[in-house]
Amino acid sequence: MKDFKFSNTGKKLTSSIIRELLKDVSIPGMISFGGGVPDPSTFPRYELSEITQKVIEEEFSYSLQYGPTEGDDVLKKAYIEYLKKNEGIKGLSTENLLITVGSQSALFLLSLVLLDKDSKYFVSKPVYLGAASAFSMRSTNHIDLPLSENGIDTELLEKKLAELASSGEIKNVKFIYVIPNFHNPAGVTLSLERRKKLLELADKYDLLIVEDDPYGDLRYEGEAIPSMFKMAGKDRVLLLKTFSKVLSPGMRLGFVIGHEEFIRKLVLAKQAVDLCSPSLTQRIAGRFLQKYDLKELLKPTIDMYRKKKDLMLEELKKNFSDMQGVHWTKPQGGLFIWLTLPEGFDTMEMMDYGKKNGILFIPGAAFSIGGGCDNSMRLSFCLPPEKDIVEGVKRLKQTVLEYGKEKGLL
Amino acid sequence: MKDFKFSNTGKKLTSSIIRELLKDVSIPGMISFGGGVPDPSTFPRYELSEITQKVIEEEFSYSLQYGPTEGDDVLKKAYIEYLKKNEGIKGLSTENLLITVGSQSALFLLSLVLLDKDSKYFVSKPVYLGAASAFSMRSTNHIDLPLSENGIDTELLEKKLAELASSGEIKNVKFIYVIPNFHNPAGVTLSLERRKKLLELADKYDLLIVEDDPYGDLRYEGEAIPSMFKMAGKDRVLLLKTFSKVLSPGMRLGFVIGHEEFIRKLVLAKQAVDLCSPSLTQRIAGRFLQKYDLKELLKPTIDMYRKKKDLMLEELKKNFSDMQGVHWTKPQGGLFIWLTLPEGFDTMEMMDYGKKNGILFIPGAAFSIGGGCDNSMRLSFCLPPEKDIVEGVKRLKQTVLEYGKEKGLL
Repeated sequence: MKDFKFSNTGKKLTSSIIRELLKDVSIPGMISFGGGVPDPSTFPRYELSEITQKVIEEEFSYSLQYGPTEGDDVLKKAYIEYLKKNEGIKGLSTENLLITVGSQSALFLLSLVLLDKDSKYFVSKPVYLGAASAFSMRSTNHIDLPLSENGIDTELLEKKLAELASSGEIKNVKFIYVIPNFHNPAGVTLSLERRKKLLELADKYDLLIVEDDPYGDLRYEGEAIPSMFKMAGKDRVLLLKTFSKVLSPGMRLGFVIGHEEFIRKLVLAKQAVDLCSPSLTQRIAGRFLQKYDLKELLKPTIDMYRKKKDLMLEELKKNFSDMQGVHWTKPQGGLFIWLTLPEGFDTMEMMDYGKKNGILFIPGAAFSIGGGCDNSMRLSFCLPPEKDIVEGVKRLKQTVLEYGKEKGLL
Repeated sequence: MKDFKFSNTGKKLTSSIIRELLKDVSIPGMISFGGGVPDPSTFPRYELSEITQKVIEEEFSYSLQYGPTEGDDVLKKAYIEYLKKNEGIKGLSTENLLITVGSQSALFLLSLVLLDKDSKYFVSKPVYLGAASAFSMRSTNHIDLPLSENGIDTELLEKKLAELASSGEIKNVKFIYVIPNFHNPAGVTLSLERRKKLLELADKYDLLIVEDDPYGDLRYEGEAIPSMFKMAGKDRVLLLKTFSKVLSPGMRLGFVIGHEEFIRKLVLAKQAVDLCSPSLTQRIAGRFLQKYDLKELLKPTIDMYRKKKDLMLEELKKNFSDMQGVHWTKPQGGLFIWLTLPEGFDTMEMMDYGKKNGILFIPGAAFSIGGGCDNSMRLSFCLPPEKDIVEGVKRLKQTVLEYGKEKGLL
């Protein structure tokens, strides 16, 4: 290959496991629990189509033109109302919002304005891959916090923070990154108690919490827990939201909600990164939110996903409850179940066995920066039809048996 | 303000002059030669609206879903045909194209994969601000090449390259950035002779040329000059194109055309930066290109812009030809005229005089990294109606007279 004199950042870039894996999705007969994408039949396409026609024909001088880097005020105002009504978040003005090209762009912009090479930050283990890749482009000094059914381990966080404070390194800690609801990949939810503890620690050490909540609107059961942003406000928390799981990922609409000075800084970074998000998709979403009650429209989606989730949990129970050392999370929402096999299983290696049996999953190592989670895997239940969920879990069981026996683990 | 522990990159971010200036556009009665945005009446809104309806209702499982980071194959294939037909570029496959969130995102991704802190790169002086801001986020070691009516000074380039080669610093030179057609802000076009010279030098020193061509399709007169990409191919040149000036900036569609290995690297960077460009706007543009001849549809736009350009040149002649030391470029296309006043004029300072007289322009210093171009300004002719062009140039003349007299320059 020609030498293009790539930068050090450029040289380090490598393809993600998920990306490579998902290429096999198109093999005929393959059942995939891999991708974390929503079911396209849930997108309100007729509503969107009708609105779009007006937005293009009547609002073309906005919707087809360059827009402000900050984002479309129509969408911002509608989303502020949405957050007020559905999450009880009050007191926001348009200056507290930035509209980004999906949440990934928000994570990258954050990384840009917060992280230097020697910066530290807390993430969960397993971690959301998109956040890890955005953050590690600027700094690889992540500090991992294991996840349990109640979310990240706040006791360990407290201990680590005390250590960092006494060593003087706390000044390099830039933020604590959390997915509070129905974690990707783990499916778990941060308990109210732990949210409070997290805020208490963030206050004590004057740290920023980055609260990434793509799945909060997809709750299938149980009571919603207030966001940390709602509890502690913009001085302490930066809230990330997105329409990718509830309206349409193809529109690429993410939201950063935070302190106006912080938002201003992100806007400046965004000017250099992509100038502005698409006016067209922003205005469509803005008019959509004005006209429709998104929460209402989401109800059939929630019913469908709940059924699929319950079915997968049931099938996992049927197939794996007799197998010692196998356990899985029981999410109350979102798209993912995290399945853990006994020690010694290597789900990355097991992928080839899975493919032979016609079943795809994402190995746990994909969600771990620098190793770990080898005996776990992420299962997504939202996209496969119900019969594929039943058949897929059977194939998964068969794969586990084959691999386990061959490796002498069973 | 609360201390958010911004990164060094974050701390350095400041608002651009253009951005601040354009806030005054909404003052009643103000005539603006400032913004570089196309006239929204030129966007083919009815054609786009019709296509969009189908794209949303019938292709929702693509257009509303996550798309590949590389971009939509439908759009890529249609654009490859477009480039073949209209620019004579042959031999491209989809692997040679990346679709970005406008050209700004392409420039930023390039900066990410090419520049380290000690990297050097060549830019023109004046320089396109968006490129300067993307590049300088990673490295501030730009080497400036003055512009004349025939584009960048290739003689100076030759001299500087020889110096860098003999000092051994040439290994840090990553690329030469050029806007070959109807330069922003200068309006000038790189001559065929200079294109050849540039390629010869790039070959000699094994350097990459970044050929940014947002305006090439907006030629009002004269014969098109082949792109350097067409002349030298993907091993030597990376070509940037965009739909922002010819279809709709609000759709945010930029194209990087280059070596498949280079594109692959950009794709990896894009995964961390924004995951994928909007599927919706990509598919709309793809179907649009399949159905319509964009070049044909552009003809009325070109006629309109040509008239406005000719009018502004005529008015400049009427008003300024008696004034010694004032000269301006005569663009054959694009959106901009670059006006230079006698030494001593400071167009940044003159802005306040302009505003009082109801006329906005962009001062030359906005297009200069680290000073210079103080006595020049950028004038855009595409957006104001014809009567405003006449009146605006009058106001500009008055402003120059007032400022010049007050400062003892006239």
